[in-house]
Amino acid sequence: MRVIVIGASGIIGQAVATALAEHHDVVRVARNSGNARIDITSIESIERFFQDIGPFDAVVSTAGSAKFGPFANLTVADFILGLTDKLMGQINLVRIGSRYINDNGSFTLTSGVLSQEPIPGSAAISPINGALESFARAAALELPRGIRINAVSPIWVTETLEKLGMDTNAGLSAAQTAHTYVASVEGTDTGKTLDVRAYV
Amino acid sequence: MRVIVIGASGIIGQAVATALAEHHDVVRVARNSGNARIDITSIESIERFFQDIGPFDAVVSTAGSAKFGPFANLTVADFILGLTDKLMGQINLVRIGSRYINDNGSFTLTSGVLSQEPIPGSAAISPINGALESFARAAALELPRGIRINAVSPIWVTETLEKLGMDTNAGLSAAQTAHTYVASVEGTDTGKTLDVRAYV
Repeated sequence: MRVIVIGASGIIGQAVATALAEHHDVVRVARNSGNARIDITSIESIERFFQDIGPFDAVVSTAGSAKFGPFANLTVADFILGLTDKLMGQINLVRIGSRYINDNGSFTLTSGVLSQEPIPGSAAISPINGALESFARAAALELPRGIRINAVSPIWVTETLEKLGMDTNAGLSAAQTAHTYVASVEGTDTGKTLDVRAYV
Repeated sequence: MRVIVIGASGIIGQAVATALAEHHDVVRVARNSGNARIDITSIESIERFFQDIGPFDAVVSTAGSAKFGPFANLTVADFILGLTDKLMGQINLVRIGSRYINDNGSFTLTSGVLSQEPIPGSAAISPINGALESFARAAALELPRGIRINAVSPIWVTETLEKLGMDTNAGLSAAQTAHTYVASVEGTDTGKTLDVRAYV
């Protein structure tokens, strides 16, 4: 398969691209690096990307920012960041990419465990992740030509915890996390939220 | 308790206000009618409302629009409607209202069954409802002074199905739906999604 990995410069994205490259032709895409560039907050950038990239069978997105911080301090702009970037960025990848993807192709988006298991500081991230899971569930009912869509829900990544000086036992490595993305691309699931802890 | 019902002109809002009025002092609020006015899409309108309304113990919101329609036809604007109105409108009620509400007060928001049980046409509504449920779960962890928050998840309302000429057996009446809102206001739950089918 020809698989496009968007967010390929990130910790999870790199590991996903590496894992998929064992059996597939991987196109690594990020905002400022990779085989091609995309800014998922720009409709024009997404349109241009899919027009130029040629035929493909799967899109994996590990891209998207959202704001972590105490609820009392979160501004409207903090919420809007996640809504325009991580949420609408990924929804627009599907809206636009679904016109270009091959029959029986798949979209794999990234939500996150904070949708179902919030922690203090996640009030502007949890809703974004919850929205992505419900979107995948709903869009799966209407995507044409056998196209599938899932949301992968990662927990903390060991490499990130290490950088932050936190206990790495609470996380999974990026390589372990990548298993779930591969399962979404190669499997038959659609409309699902795939919890990375179930695929280690 | 003094309970503010926002969206009190709607089918569910009217029933909720009526049910709560049996035991509480209810302030009926809508965009263009009621004891007071509010436009939940305007931060200024929300700020002004809470500054003027006096002490209160609970806010119930049954307000908020989102777009129903085939996924292939949904525009970015259709998604933005739900994000700015039903989602950020209700989040801003909590962000701002939580500075004014009495100790041990509560917020009850409205999500909807389409978050977990989508149907064709709900791709721009399901994510809004999912986001609201995750938001309630997350915000509950950080609201100060014993303040609670829940999302009520209604199914189709019989009165609406009747208007649309659809089978009313699939729904619950507005009065039946109102039970769940009363339970959220009078109970001790927080961070929960309350499915109306569990409270009939």
